Amino acid sequence: MERYDLAIVGSGPAGLSAALNAKIRNKKFIIFGSKDLSNKIMKAPKINNYLGFYGMNGAEIKEKFAEHIDKMGIQITEERVNNIYAMGDYFTLMVNDKMYEATAVILATGMEYTKPLKGELELLGKGVGYCATCDAPLYKGKTVSIVGYNKEAEEEANYVSELAGKVYYIPMYKDEYEVRDNIEVVNKKPLEIVGDNKVSSLKLDGLDLETDGVFVLKDSISPGQLVPGLEIVDGHINVDREMKSNIPGCFAAGDCVGKPYQYIKSAGEGNIAALSAVRYIDILKNK
Amino acid sequence: MERYDLAIVGSGPAGLSAALNAKIRNKKFIIFGSKDLSNKIMKAPKINNYLGFYGMNGAEIKEKFAEHIDKMGIQITEERVNNIYAMGDYFTLMVNDKMYEATAVILATGMEYTKPLKGELELLGKGVGYCATCDAPLYKGKTVSIVGYNKEAEEEANYVSELAGKVYYIPMYKDEYEVRDNIEVVNKKPLEIVGDNKVSSLKLDGLDLETDGVFVLKDSISPGQLVPGLEIVDGHINVDREMKSNIPGCFAAGDCVGKPYQYIKSAGEGNIAALSAVRYIDILKNK
Ligand SMILES: Cc1cc2nc3c(=O)[nH]c(=O)nc-3n(C[C@H](O)[C@H](O)[C@H](O)COP(=O)(O)OP(=O)(O)OC[C@H]3O[C@@H](n4cnc5c(N)ncnc54)[C@H](O)[C@@H]3O)c2cc1C
Ligand SMILES: Cc1cc2nc3c(=O)[nH]c(=O)nc-3n(C[C@H](O)[C@H](O)[C@H](O)COP(=O)(O)OP(=O)(O)OC[C@H]3O[C@@H](n4cnc5c(N)ncnc54)[C@H](O)[C@@H]3O)c2cc1C
Repeated sequence: MERYDLAIVGSGPAGLSAALNAKIRNKKFIIFGSKDLSNKIMKAPKINNYLGFYGMNGAEIKEKFAEHIDKMGIQITEERVNNIYAMGDYFTLMVNDKMYEATAVILATGMEYTKPLKGELELLGKGVGYCATCDAPLYKGKTVSIVGYNKEAEEEANYVSELAGKVYYIPMYKDEYEVRDNIEVVNKKPLEIVGDNKVSSLKLDGLDLETDGVFVLKDSISPGQLVPGLEIVDGHINVDREMKSNIPGCFAAGDCVGKPYQYIKSAGEGNIAALSAVRYIDILKNK
Repeated sequence: MERYDLAIVGSGPAGLSAALNAKIRNKKFIIFGSKDLSNKIMKAPKINNYLGFYGMNGAEIKEKFAEHIDKMGIQITEERVNNIYAMGDYFTLMVNDKMYEATAVILATGMEYTKPLKGELELLGKGVGYCATCDAPLYKGKTVSIVGYNKEAEEEANYVSELAGKVYYIPMYKDEYEVRDNIEVVNKKPLEIVGDNKVSSLKLDGLDLETDGVFVLKDSISPGQLVPGLEIVDGHINVDREMKSNIPGCFAAGDCVGKPYQYIKSAGEGNIAALSAVRYIDILKNK
């Protein structure tokens, strides 16, 4: 398998800024994210504290960022990274049915503000999962409920429905739902995942679904979940001033490493993380 | 004396970014620096790693920054801060013949790349000084040599010449020198400040000047010099991830807190420092 020097996970200001510097430093890198770059950029009504831009809204700043990376020849790989495993002197990144390898990794995944459901954390790995396509085989012929926070979750639901006996889809957004006919869409608010050491049901507002598994498909997976072994302090990835995490070769930047949650702080940290990663890669190569 | 909530020292990306956030957070602040913002911005031939701007040179980016702060109604006070004293719950900033007070301070002074002269650090305070206008009275009737790194140093030399017996001016830049007639301009490279526990002479390339004092007037004063008691590690101000220094109420951002020396890293840190300072100020006010 071809191995990248660097994999950047996330296409918000932190990930994009890291990518610029990786490009300038001639590293072979891949950046995962979305064409819209970041929901948190798109949604901002007005931004006045990103030095150099005044009075723009999120969509306008997004255009500036997109133009910049475009002119530098940087393309975003529109895939969601589900798991990252530290293999010693490289990392394996799991992306649904694909795998990637990279010498170093920068996590720039932002912060997910959605609170976990009641019971979600307690039953994680005991019927609760975040990667439907990874774990679907465990539910052959069984009943699976999928709480989807975005349209991409529909694809995962479709895939699960090929294996599971029964799939409920609980959308957390408003849209046309493009799911297969054998999937039952339930438009009720999820309240709690119930189970005694193993998921038994999903309690919705006014309805209880008996279920063997629950997948919660949010915009971002918690970093501790994404990278087993990663040190988390107060919900954020623990990094030093060089943006190094506790795992050698794994760097992080942006909202995911702590407050304040801000664009230019994120971009600044992406810059530092990239230069630290470049140094790490170069030292490893010259060994 | 009127007291500011916050004084920001430096008008590079770190200081400007801090100022934006102080403004948005409605703090009464003052920012010291220059109308050109920063030499290090102006000089850059091409900048590709400031997310949102592609292929611009320093002067063009400077225009963008200037426009931004202008539209936010931020004015730069064109004065050089010579000393900052921590007074407990406020700071006193010495600016030549003036004084300012502020509850909190952000140091965004950049990094001075010029090496100290031989003997400079050893004889600091023993005839070597960085603020000619502050210390001139010590040299009434005596001989003073001024090593000036920029045009502003000429004004200081003129002032010193009103008191001193004899003033030599050693310019480290090329220009028309607008100094008084009683000042002797010596266009030779300074090599060493000589003295045995007290300055006795300044050794130039091919000439020794007998002198009682030497003022070295650089673009920036080392931060340890600027703020007595400030903790310096490896030549940089020691800060934590909130940009707090060891002195309560004193924050720092940009090149002066460490590598990498980069625009967006500096701007990101300025943002963090400002929000940390705002928190500090608010807590103090609500006590
Ligand atoms: C409404 C609103 C207004 C705001 N206004 C301002 C403002 O005026 N000024 C300001 O400074 N800040 C503002 N913010 C905060 C700012 O948006 C964030 O601080 C900033 O976007 C964080 O950047 P980031 O790169 O860390 O993460 P994000 O911008 O959140 O980007 C993270 C990216 O990573 C992707 N990702 C996550 N996990 C994965 C994965 N496993 N695989 C692949 N991709 C993944 C996400 O899809 C996303 O694209 C605002 C935020 C909101 C919500
Ligand atoms: C030629 C050149 C090219 C560069 N190219 C790039 C590039 O492409 N990309 C990149 O990211 N970085 C680049 N850099 C680095 C970048 O310029 C710096 O990292 C950045 O300017 C640091 O910002 P700062 O705010 O910390 O300090 P500075 O920009 O150095 O600003 C410090 C300010 O503080 C003022 N000041 C200092 N002391 C005092 C005092 N006592 N009282 C009042 N004011 C004071 C100074 O006059 C100055 O205005 C380049 C640098 C140079 C020299």
